[in-house]
Amino acid sequence: MNQDDIRTLNELKMLSIDMITRANSGSPGLVLSMAPTIYTLFAKHLMIKPDEPNWINRDRVVLSSGNASSILYAILYLAGYQIRKEDLMNYCRLGSITPGYPEYRLTPGIDISTGLFGEGIAMGVGIALARKIYQNIIEEEDDRIKLLDFNTYCICTDRDMMEGCSEEALSFASTQKLDHFILLYIHNNMLEDGSLEMVKKEEMIKKYQAMGFYVDDLKDGTNVKEIDKAIQAAKKSGRPAILILKAVLGKESFNENKNITYRNPLPTHDVANLRKKWNLFLPPFEVSKDSMIFLQKSIQERTEKKYNKWIEFYHRANQNLKIKEMIDAMMKKQLNLSFDSEHYKINDGYCEPLIETNRKVINMIAPQSNLFLGCSADSIATCQTLITQNDLTDKNKKIRNLLFGLREHAMGSILNGMAVTGLKGFGSTKLIYADYMKPAIRMTAYMNLPVTYIFTHDTISVGEEGPIIQPIEQLSMLHTTPNLVVYRPADVLEVMGSWENIIKRNIPAALIITQNNSPKLPNSNAKMVSKGAYIIKQEKNRLDGILISCGSELPYTLQIAYDLEKNGFDLRVVSMPSMELFLGEGKEYEEFVLPKSAKKIVIEASSPLLWNRFVNNSEMIIGINDFGYSGHPNEVLLKMGFDYESLKNKVENLLK
Amino acid sequence: MNQDDIRTLNELKMLSIDMITRANSGSPGLVLSMAPTIYTLFAKHLMIKPDEPNWINRDRVVLSSGNASSILYAILYLAGYQIRKEDLMNYCRLGSITPGYPEYRLTPGIDISTGLFGEGIAMGVGIALARKIYQNIIEEEDDRIKLLDFNTYCICTDRDMMEGCSEEALSFASTQKLDHFILLYIHNNMLEDGSLEMVKKEEMIKKYQAMGFYVDDLKDGTNVKEIDKAIQAAKKSGRPAILILKAVLGKESFNENKNITYRNPLPTHDVANLRKKWNLFLPPFEVSKDSMIFLQKSIQERTEKKYNKWIEFYHRANQNLKIKEMIDAMMKKQLNLSFDSEHYKINDGYCEPLIETNRKVINMIAPQSNLFLGCSADSIATCQTLITQNDLTDKNKKIRNLLFGLREHAMGSILNGMAVTGLKGFGSTKLIYADYMKPAIRMTAYMNLPVTYIFTHDTISVGEEGPIIQPIEQLSMLHTTPNLVVYRPADVLEVMGSWENIIKRNIPAALIITQNNSPKLPNSNAKMVSKGAYIIKQEKNRLDGILISCGSELPYTLQIAYDLEKNGFDLRVVSMPSMELFLGEGKEYEEFVLPKSAKKIVIEASSPLLWNRFVNNSEMIIGINDFGYSGHPNEVLLKMGFDYESLKNKVENLLK
Repeated sequence: MNQDDIRTLNELKMLSIDMITRANSGSPGLVLSMAPTIYTLFAKHLMIKPDEPNWINRDRVVLSSGNASSILYAILYLAGYQIRKEDLMNYCRLGSITPGYPEYRLTPGIDISTGLFGEGIAMGVGIALARKIYQNIIEEEDDRIKLLDFNTYCICTDRDMMEGCSEEALSFASTQKLDHFILLYIHNNMLEDGSLEMVKKEEMIKKYQAMGFYVDDLKDGTNVKEIDKAIQAAKKSGRPAILILKAVLGKESFNENKNITYRNPLPTHDVANLRKKWNLFLPPFEVSKDSMIFLQKSIQERTEKKYNKWIEFYHRANQNLKIKEMIDAMMKKQLNLSFDSEHYKINDGYCEPLIETNRKVINMIAPQSNLFLGCSADSIATCQTLITQNDLTDKNKKIRNLLFGLREHAMGSILNGMAVTGLKGFGSTKLIYADYMKPAIRMTAYMNLPVTYIFTHDTISVGEEGPIIQPIEQLSMLHTTPNLVVYRPADVLEVMGSWENIIKRNIPAALIITQNNSPKLPNSNAKMVSKGAYIIKQEKNRLDGILISCGSELPYTLQIAYDLEKNGFDLRVVSMPSMELFLGEGKEYEEFVLPKSAKKIVIEASSPLLWNRFVNNSEMIIGINDFGYSGHPNEVLLKMGFDYESLKNKVENLLK
Repeated sequence: MNQDDIRTLNELKMLSIDMITRANSGSPGLVLSMAPTIYTLFAKHLMIKPDEPNWINRDRVVLSSGNASSILYAILYLAGYQIRKEDLMNYCRLGSITPGYPEYRLTPGIDISTGLFGEGIAMGVGIALARKIYQNIIEEEDDRIKLLDFNTYCICTDRDMMEGCSEEALSFASTQKLDHFILLYIHNNMLEDGSLEMVKKEEMIKKYQAMGFYVDDLKDGTNVKEIDKAIQAAKKSGRPAILILKAVLGKESFNENKNITYRNPLPTHDVANLRKKWNLFLPPFEVSKDSMIFLQKSIQERTEKKYNKWIEFYHRANQNLKIKEMIDAMMKKQLNLSFDSEHYKINDGYCEPLIETNRKVINMIAPQSNLFLGCSADSIATCQTLITQNDLTDKNKKIRNLLFGLREHAMGSILNGMAVTGLKGFGSTKLIYADYMKPAIRMTAYMNLPVTYIFTHDTISVGEEGPIIQPIEQLSMLHTTPNLVVYRPADVLEVMGSWENIIKRNIPAALIITQNNSPKLPNSNAKMVSKGAYIIKQEKNRLDGILISCGSELPYTLQIAYDLEKNGFDLRVVSMPSMELFLGEGKEYEEFVLPKSAKKIVIEASSPLLWNRFVNNSEMIIGINDFGYSGHPNEVLLKMGFDYESLKNKVENLLK
């Protein structure tokens, strides 16, 4: 390390410590142990343009351990991103662009939100996968255009590496040969509750090699020169890489290697001592011009040549319409598709398992863009989500359908990583496995990414396999996740309407699709899905009551309404394919569809509690609040009181 | 293989295929590939007593791939368990003891419910861990008593091995040196969507060796002799073991190695052909007496000697009161503790972070039994759940506090495995990580196991780290899980009352504990927690309204009621530490606490939807339906309208 390196690195560390001290939040322990790695990355390797933070071929940095955010903000500041000293001083303050954990769309240089253990690794894999997908399609068009060859660096710690979703994601990454993915694993060997060895004893090098990675481990993972060499070798390895960087927690502080530094700011005398040790005489938050110039120049010189070459590719690429579409999606971080249900005429006799219908709709949308991708957790056959229509050769066909095997959690997180690059993906599995994916679904919703989760086999009617895989509370889990829109269409038109809305609004969505045979319903309406709920059967003269339902319970519900007409009840039926959209429509529309004064009854084979929102009395909800049974679907429905006769009788009694 | 082996194995396979054919459900592909393994296990290795299926030192078999259940039921039948031919004929029928997936407490010889991918492996690890814990404590008392040396065999497939929770559990198992855990990994190399190699390329032997396992792989994992030898070697290895048994899906059927056999019953001609090939001339569901006698005799002879020795240990063990308690717990599959809040006097000025209070209560309960165990996902410091009071030596102290590292999902599943052996454990982490554990929590609830989940850091008031770790919808997720009781106590008395109820009722429970300073509240009541909700502040003369709240929002809520009295409002405040218990109390008590006619307002810093159950109008719920912010807790609360003044104003406006 030359003097410039030493000084800049020390100032970086101090700046980050100053931030933590002032905010009284953050992790000095992590920061001190990973500072040399972050520094080496920015000073020696990253191809980035701080003045053009959204350059599509920039190297990506994903900081999986979000509570080390101060060091990332600090180096982005030094590197010349649009971050001011005041922003660093407002670290962890409400409204700042330097929140406790890095947040997507907020801070220049931050490409994704991180902080949940393990998630960052999986999302990083998603970004690396997206690069491969884009570049493969580009080369299919014109193999001279090397538009995207960026690396994705993911920085993580022992904590991230213990989570199952990391393992799932890494196993997937090596299978996909993501050679531009480099994991910088800061190996503190110290957790919050004590030494890592108490809870994990593995020969990690051997393990990750067995998983197909290029692996290197550094005895001193805080030595800039060694880190530099190791990253160079990783880049040349032609394989996804894991660098295990041994680095004690709280390096150089009085409490070096003690877990107390993980969460507690350093004591004042410790900070003073470090300032002295590092020969820093500037006041807190001040850095030398030399350091900023040194770092910025090194980044600029390194990137310039590559960028100039890239610009040539870019101009050539823009002359190809298909590639241009991709570049636009990447730049806007969003792919715009269109789907209009009006273009399709559905016969009245239409009746099919809704998963079949859904596959057809997916394949109506698919030909528009190669960036619309299907992901599946060993569920293409089960959920019927194969994208078949496309204009690609067989060789590339796979890329429209990504197979994840039984790695639901990682699939969700990887979809999130793909989405921040502008890819539009859906992921499918059975509804019960939504439980495995919850953390990823929440991150989709939080980052407001246009990921669509397709969940099939949605009620106790899955039958024989029994209660363990019969969803009961999963719909509620999805409904209560903020910013996620849940669609549970009942027939072919509502499936089309759901997709129309998903495509148009580019929102986080969960699409619940039954495996049951579903007839096209009289008066069902694709366009009305956007309202969330609508009157699918109008009462004739007086309003004796309103039946609310959705999904595979709606056909039954309609039939009940017609049958009860014969018994003298004049009923309205409301289809509610999306509770969230309906609640977003406001009070006036709600009063129109569900007048306050009317008696309302809900029928859904799912947890009833949420439905209290729409009824006057919890007894008016016919739902399921217990686990199901193994048996033939019809037997199970009967046992749970969800067969036609039981439902009809319950409704009739409630109306009396 | 001798003739007896050949015949018995063939009859076993046929029987299982007959079950699948008749039920039109189940997996012939899996069954045919794993039959030799199951057979070898029962015919050559298991120490079991079919006439005494709850013998506490029996070897355990956990079938992680639940949809292969027919082969397990079939061999249990052949082995002489209390299963009749009619039961096999009713496979997958409602009300049978042979449901689609194995179910705990239902079928003799079935020790745990399985079927969700990966869960079985983790629960198996939990059972193996329980054995170690029990035996360690026994030896601490009297090291001559070798009461528990059973093996836990877990049978799984490629699907299970891809799930992150398996990886977490296996990594934990090797760290814990669970040498009595043997994983029989049926390696079909074929998933439902095609070849495993499309989605996973790993050198598995090397990988699992690196993780600390004894590993063997069998080129022909359907060869009884080879499987026998491999299991023998695994038992002698002194390490947890993984046997990788290559076995094509649908072995010997016309569709051998085709994924179609995974879910579809074999065609009639295929079944006929197998019957012929295996020289079986009995009608469906018939087996020869020779086979039953052969298998039962081999089990009996093998187990007898061991059992007689065990009986000696058992008699000696029963003379030691502490060991006797353990044996009782194991036999009843339940540990009975007691905790009476009345024994503790709390001063009025008591005020502490509730996580501290909770730690104290845990340590009031802990001295009663060594089988009450604390598990933590690197969260002992964060959640304050260290068991300190115990009568064990330091050496064994660790066993009261099991460290899992960041493996939340596996922790939950392992707790379930421990619980079926009678251990009573709790697992702690931050509430946001409940998302990671959802599948395990659901299994706890489904099996009705007395596992307690302790979730801390329960609202946006966690502050700086920001929205990614601020729970919003997690409480709703727990509330809607069938059979799970959620407790969210507000102060020291309610914490004691929650534990009293959890201990007394031995139920699946989630205990939500705030990290905030929490004063003892006037009129709070430990005993009333059992009612789920109670009037903590009575109105004076007329009932202008009822404020409902819980947890860390209750102190605020009470204060608002007192302050609004000055503005002329006469208010009741209801504390609702457990929505589930309150709903279980029935209508009369509900009307007493929350009269229909009264205006009710809910205050909880969580998803509002569920609360519609208790109010007349959704506007009466003051909740949070969006993600939080990074900032100082007070700043965040203010921003989200959950500061004291905002809440008071909202309540006042709603009352007007």
